[in-house]
Amino acid sequence: MRVIDTETFLKECKLKSSQDVDFELDRTVLSIIENVRKKGDAALHSYTEQFDGVLLTEIVVSENEFIEANEAVSESFRTAIRRAKERITAFHFEQKERSWFIGEKDGVLLGQQVTPIERVGIYVPGGKAAYPSTVLMNALPAKIAGVEQIVIATPPQPDGKVNPYVLVAAKEAGVDRVYKMGGAQAIAALAYGTESIERVMKITGPGNAYVARAKKWVFGDVAIDMIAGPSEICIVADETAKVEYVAADLLSQAEHDERATAICITTNKKFAHKLSNEVQKQLLNLERASIAASSIEAQGRIIVTNSIEESLQLLNDIAPEHLQLMVNKPMELLPKICNAGAIFLGNYSPEALGDYMAGPNHTLPTSGTAAFSSPLGVYDFVKRSSIIHFTNEAFNIVAEDVVQLAAAEGLAGHANSISIRKGG
Amino acid sequence: MRVIDTETFLKECKLKSSQDVDFELDRTVLSIIENVRKKGDAALHSYTEQFDGVLLTEIVVSENEFIEANEAVSESFRTAIRRAKERITAFHFEQKERSWFIGEKDGVLLGQQVTPIERVGIYVPGGKAAYPSTVLMNALPAKIAGVEQIVIATPPQPDGKVNPYVLVAAKEAGVDRVYKMGGAQAIAALAYGTESIERVMKITGPGNAYVARAKKWVFGDVAIDMIAGPSEICIVADETAKVEYVAADLLSQAEHDERATAICITTNKKFAHKLSNEVQKQLLNLERASIAASSIEAQGRIIVTNSIEESLQLLNDIAPEHLQLMVNKPMELLPKICNAGAIFLGNYSPEALGDYMAGPNHTLPTSGTAAFSSPLGVYDFVKRSSIIHFTNEAFNIVAEDVVQLAAAEGLAGHANSISIRKGG
Repeated sequence: MRVIDTETFLKECKLKSSQDVDFELDRTVLSIIENVRKKGDAALHSYTEQFDGVLLTEIVVSENEFIEANEAVSESFRTAIRRAKERITAFHFEQKERSWFIGEKDGVLLGQQVTPIERVGIYVPGGKAAYPSTVLMNALPAKIAGVEQIVIATPPQPDGKVNPYVLVAAKEAGVDRVYKMGGAQAIAALAYGTESIERVMKITGPGNAYVARAKKWVFGDVAIDMIAGPSEICIVADETAKVEYVAADLLSQAEHDERATAICITTNKKFAHKLSNEVQKQLLNLERASIAASSIEAQGRIIVTNSIEESLQLLNDIAPEHLQLMVNKPMELLPKICNAGAIFLGNYSPEALGDYMAGPNHTLPTSGTAAFSSPLGVYDFVKRSSIIHFTNEAFNIVAEDVVQLAAAEGLAGHANSISIRKGG
Repeated sequence: MRVIDTETFLKECKLKSSQDVDFELDRTVLSIIENVRKKGDAALHSYTEQFDGVLLTEIVVSENEFIEANEAVSESFRTAIRRAKERITAFHFEQKERSWFIGEKDGVLLGQQVTPIERVGIYVPGGKAAYPSTVLMNALPAKIAGVEQIVIATPPQPDGKVNPYVLVAAKEAGVDRVYKMGGAQAIAALAYGTESIERVMKITGPGNAYVARAKKWVFGDVAIDMIAGPSEICIVADETAKVEYVAADLLSQAEHDERATAICITTNKKFAHKLSNEVQKQLLNLERASIAASSIEAQGRIIVTNSIEESLQLLNDIAPEHLQLMVNKPMELLPKICNAGAIFLGNYSPEALGDYMAGPNHTLPTSGTAAFSSPLGVYDFVKRSSIIHFTNEAFNIVAEDVVQLAAAEGLAGHANSISIRKGG
């Protein structure tokens, strides 16, 4: 793993590239969306046959399939899912927002009413990897927000079934229905509805390029969570960090994806070189060694800075998805961190803990978007309405100023709706 | 103004059309964005000459120009702006979120750190209409959130200046800098920066089709607020509502735009017909009569329902931007409202009050998006970071469950980052 200084690192960071513009992909995605909107279930079934290689007679996962799934997984998995659910629920409960009101003596009442989004759809990728943790991290905040109907869309396997881990997690999280559908066609069906699928108001969850583009196109007609990029970790370490732990954490990120990024920032050059050797050593024993090796080679860096201030500046500029502070007194650095999705403190808070079990959400802003966005949370599944009530007396106090401002904007009808009430 | 029943109204509401797909517009917008990214200030100046017809020597509004603007507006306007600022500030202050922590006995500390977005750009449209209220409604929540740098982009007039109302509002709201630039080129400069403009992390504010498309394209590289559609009002009225007020409020919405929507829902057929006549009568005296008449003709409707339950169902389905409850006991209906941007209660809370002076934000979700989104607020200018700290003891309690879940997802590196610490 390469050891470099801040200057070299910054030079290597070319202008962050804009999102890929691929009109060909967009045309394909748009034609799938339009087809599903026009032909509904028929189009959906035909795409499922074409892309997933299975002709479904029934798109909704049956109660029987849930029972089968439950029997197919181990007792220890079921226990782990249940415990994860408890911890995730407890944390997200703290995010619940209340409606509030404030009054003014002359008779003004202002407030904010918080209500759940009515129906939400979660996309869960299929294929070889199954992510039951994704189900919990998306469904539980929605549940706590009070969403009435939570559905999952996930592509069927070639045998027409859905991964049992996903189904067990869905049941545990209180998901109302699981649809066997994937790709852009699933996003279209969720966004606009078909004969058999009720449209939702928000779509969350990760997916492949088709899913991501489809989410971008339906955005506005429905809400979406975010367009997630490859995963990243940034570890700030000093000599109190155990080099074996840091190496294992960097590799746990690197095994995700060749495009994943694992970075360590330290002021200690000796530590940096020890870490580099340890990463090479651990890499040899990794199951997904070739993926991890590609990621480490392409994006993995150990950056040696001249001071902790330089480290903090750099990490705030990077705005990493995951940040581990493996330093002697991590709490002292916390107030200096502006941009990070999740911050893990100390030697015993590795990222993998947060991926599954700690409680906070693992759906986090990637690619520097932590500078302007937040982890998925209960706040993503509610909306607010402003409340405004003026008595006649209170109205008359502000009326003239409103007329002034409406006039400055050339909106006489607005001014009139005030004047007509004056002294009324 | 047409009086119809619910069934007829629903029949007329065809499938809500998706966003316009216009690859030609997209190509133009993308080429502008790419040019500004590559050539910076030079491209920006050249587009300003081309689209705004003015060759600028200086893009930043000078202190002198602010002084001139202040002298150009009336004392009563300055007073009204100041009072609006006070009310808007007081309301939005209530939206401030705190960072929080929770502890568990075995040594787990979890939390959420709330921090402001560092730099924000507000787009303020130019042209004949100037909207100082837009400046306050965007800048003040950002200010309260603690945003360090707030800048405005607004197209210059042909004389190279900026509308004085906008500048006075910008000064009052504490905006740090106003740039004379508009269109897609302004969005690109804000999103990616140029030699003279520092990039921002979030762009808010309304704009024309180019601005809207540019915002959609840069979304992901920066945050954006929303893509706003034409404005709407929905008034639920009973016989206690003054028909003159209801008519004036419908027309204040209709004067905005031919595509604006003004709807009244009532169970009282007699009231409906009186209202229809009153709208025609007031329309004659309106300054912007032709715009308002087109809007009323195309989208304006008075819907007569059979019950208040039917009215509520209908309005929740519409999810209006502005909702006025002009009924005898509006507070009793409030808990039954799920979807609305802002809710105005009673006879003396017309929408125009909320547009300028009441306190809550006037940037509201349009086109039914109130079913899944919120008014612009302080929460739009902060982001959250999750905080996770486990002691060695606390770690060992959950470690085995994490290993189980990582194994189910086929991520051995994740499991290893846990196992390596066990008993450590």
